[in-house]
Amino acid sequence: MALSARNRLKGVIEEIAWGDVLAHVTIRIGDALVESVITRRSAQELGLKQGDPVTAVVKATEVMIEK
Amino acid sequence: MALSARNRLKGVIEEIAWGDVLAHVTIRIGDALVESVITRRSAQELGLKQGDPVTAVVKATEVMIEK
Amino acid sequence: MALSARNRLKGVIEEIAWGDVLAHVTIRIGDALVESVITRRSAQELGLKQGDPVTAVVKATEVMIEK
Amino acid sequence: MALSARNRLKGVIEEIAWGDVLAHVTIRIGDALVESVITRRSAQELGLKQGDPVTAVVKATEVMIEK
Amino acid sequence: MALSARNRLKGVIEEIAWGDVLAHVTIRIGDALVESVITRRSAQELGLKQGDPVTAVVKATEVMIEK
Amino acid sequence: MALSARNRLKGVIEEIAWGDVLAHVTIRIGDALVESVITRRSAQELGLKQGDPVTAVVKATEVMIEK
Repeated sequence: MALSARNRLKGVIEEIAWGDVLAHVTIRIGDALVESVITRRSAQELGLKQGDPVTAVVKATEVMIEK
Repeated sequence: MALSARNRLKGVIEEIAWGDVLAHVTIRIGDALVESVITRRSAQELGLKQGDPVTAVVKATEVMIEK
Repeated sequence: MALSARNRLKGVIEEIAWGDVLAHVTIRIGDALVESVITRRSAQELGLKQGDPVTAVVKATEVMIEK
Repeated sequence: MALSARNRLKGVIEEIAWGDVLAHVTIRIGDALVESVITRRSAQELGLKQGDPVTAVVKATEVMIEK
Repeated sequence: MALSARNRLKGVIEEIAWGDVLAHVTIRIGDALVESVITRRSAQELGLKQGDPVTAVVKATEVMIEK
Repeated sequence: MALSARNRLKGVIEEIAWGDVLAHVTIRIGDALVESVITRRSAQELGLKQGDPVTAVVKATEVMIEK
């Protein structure tokens, strides 16, 4: 099964800050850090923890460009 | 001036597909490709063209995680 | 592999309107129609066509509530 | 008055988890559950509670497709 | 009926650029211009035209801050 | 440097509600209030406080229209 979202960046979880409804997840991707805010429930159901290999997924319409 | 969006990834424009209202921009960021859909007007006003160094910017709430 | 996006609704593609950069896809889900705008490239790479069984996927932070 | 957002799914609130800034609302829509994260203030001002009939509203550009 | 989206700005349509799948709508709101990209179908079904009084609606999680 | 996001509205911070992971920021823009939910970390790193002049930034694809 494949998803229409065009951006997939592989990395490793560096840190998770757990909130009451959301979790703030920091992912190391090469030299860069990518930060994601997802529901606490998704983070729990995926069993996210520091060191996990994960993929950051972003729909193309959500990406802005700065020049 | 700084923006609250937490994700900033530097790369180089590899390709632009121009539509009537939108533009589909492909950015090479290290080994990965990131794709962005922005308005044609923004792409024109920024003068985007192949080879331009640009930064892809994404709000953290728009990043999903796959594991 | 599982994705953090919490909403997954299974249905069947009823219609696709192809634009130059995007595609507008209508999905029948039970009694309801769900409409999605994705890139033309994703729609092509997924080989989307009328009658295909697909899943509409939405991040929880993108869902509003009317009462 | 009508809104441009193309997706409107009617259901009933099954659960609300209240956070400090946000609320995580689960809506039963037929056989499916749809989850929404909105501001705590909106949830309070709408007076959301278990059993309320509500409509989940999603902009078409926020819907991804998996096949 | 009320919607959870917290931002509602009243204005008047100044221009519409019609694309094949989307429409790019420019709204004058006081001294500012706000631009919206919605589906062509929504713009047609709402009968949008220059001079129409409309409200721009934005979910709070989609608003970034620059300082 | 310029960003592709087409909507930029200048105002002054009227209130900040701090959550564990997010901050809910209310901005006065002329006669209107605009509300933004950003990460707590961004709000801290930008040093946001009541009375600060700021700009609300929104991508055009996130703006809906009501008529």
